[in-house]
Amino acid sequence: MLIGEVVGTVVSTQKDEKLVGLKFQIVREVDDHNRPTGAYVVAIDAVGAGHGDRVLFATGSSARQTVLTEGRPADAVIMAIIDSWDVQGDPIYSRQAPVER
Amino acid sequence: MLIGEVVGTVVSTQKDEKLVGLKFQIVREVDDHNRPTGAYVVAIDAVGAGHGDRVLFATGSSARQTVLTEGRPADAVIMAIIDSWDVQGDPIYSRQAPVER
Amino acid sequence: MLIGEVVGTVVSTQKDEKLVGLKFQIVREVDDHNRPTGAYVVAIDAVGAGHGDRVLFATGSSARQTVLTEGRPADAVIMAIIDSWDVQGDPIYSRQAPVER
Amino acid sequence: MLIGEVVGTVVSTQKDEKLVGLKFQIVREVDDHNRPTGAYVVAIDAVGAGHGDRVLFATGSSARQTVLTEGRPADAVIMAIIDSWDVQGDPIYSRQAPVER
Amino acid sequence: MLIGEVVGTVVSTQKDEKLVGLKFQIVREVDDHNRPTGAYVVAIDAVGAGHGDRVLFATGSSARQTVLTEGRPADAVIMAIIDSWDVQGDPIYSRQAPVER
Repeated sequence: MLIGEVVGTVVSTQKDEKLVGLKFQIVREVDDHNRPTGAYVVAIDAVGAGHGDRVLFATGSSARQTVLTEGRPADAVIMAIIDSWDVQGDPIYSRQAPVER
Repeated sequence: MLIGEVVGTVVSTQKDEKLVGLKFQIVREVDDHNRPTGAYVVAIDAVGAGHGDRVLFATGSSARQTVLTEGRPADAVIMAIIDSWDVQGDPIYSRQAPVER
Repeated sequence: MLIGEVVGTVVSTQKDEKLVGLKFQIVREVDDHNRPTGAYVVAIDAVGAGHGDRVLFATGSSARQTVLTEGRPADAVIMAIIDSWDVQGDPIYSRQAPVER
Repeated sequence: MLIGEVVGTVVSTQKDEKLVGLKFQIVREVDDHNRPTGAYVVAIDAVGAGHGDRVLFATGSSARQTVLTEGRPADAVIMAIIDSWDVQGDPIYSRQAPVER
Repeated sequence: MLIGEVVGTVVSTQKDEKLVGLKFQIVREVDDHNRPTGAYVVAIDAVGAGHGDRVLFATGSSARQTVLTEGRPADAVIMAIIDSWDVQGDPIYSRQAPVER
């Protein structure tokens, strides 16, 4: 999995029928110090994430292992909203008081 | 998934028999601000996209989860035509009035 | 899928028994304007491609969906020989009269 | 698989129900000479690795082949703690006496 | 598949139980002219390759299609030892008399 920030939403009415009812979130990848890497992904939201949240997303066939995405043509899913993380003992991010960039 | 622009079509008569009848579209990847990244993919079209459309495409085994692509040797599929998307509250693209680059 | 040019062949006698009888082709990836990207892949040939042909190749689990590659430890397959392709209305390549680079 | 160093932990309470009870470790990828490459991954820990350990991690569907991760939406798993490795006859790393960088 | 050179071995006693008895080889990727690309992978050896051999390795779920790796959490496998290869008619590598770099 990688860490990302939810920054936007994609709207589509003309899509594969297996995708009806799913929400497409634009997720910007960040590195382990919460800095944007420049990469992004459009992911199905399985956990109700909001804009600004830091999330974990999985890609590939693993993205179809949630109840929401099973059997659907989706290759990326948000499967966790992050409360906090640390690197080598230092707190990097906390949902209540995000570290400024 | 990633966002791309449909820019061309590949024609092939000599191909694996499971691919007969499918349309190969050339899709140029764009970033979340609708700028080309330089990467492209050739994808099976599952939704009837036309040249100039911005689309969502899935890759890997997920590309075989549409009715059209199940069990076929395809690793990329267009599974949605995009109406619009926004990033951090700003509209980036709308199908009726595309943002100029 | 990506577009590539078949440029060579790999010979191996000591290999997994499931690979006996399959042909390994070296395929150089080209971009959507038929220019080499510098990347390559060694792919199983499912369609009888020859050196100089432009082909479509699929990677990952999708490479195991041809009759030839099912259940084998192969992660890349040539599944179509390209007749021609166009980008934004311009012809880029035609098998009978290749565009010069 | 790639070699990585376990450097941190991600905490999440709001996540897909299939992920409850699993530990998310932040793993920094190193090259075959034990130098950081700049890439990282968040992986499920299947072997009880601690911070500072060099580990092998697998990604994609293979990450779901451990007893711990089967059927879960996880695309990266730590499946081995490394004792040592060598390159062209030279010892590069040993768990008891790590090579200084 | 990609071409690589076997350069080392990883030793691990604390690992997922499905990996007991398997050998982890460090494989440096080379390009189609037998030059190192700088990338590497740790792969399960399914064919008895030795240090210095040029091999084909497969990644992803295809790495689990050998008898040796089926159902195991491995995402890379050496599935062939290369005798020789050519590019555009020129011999690049031969196991008996390797081309000097």
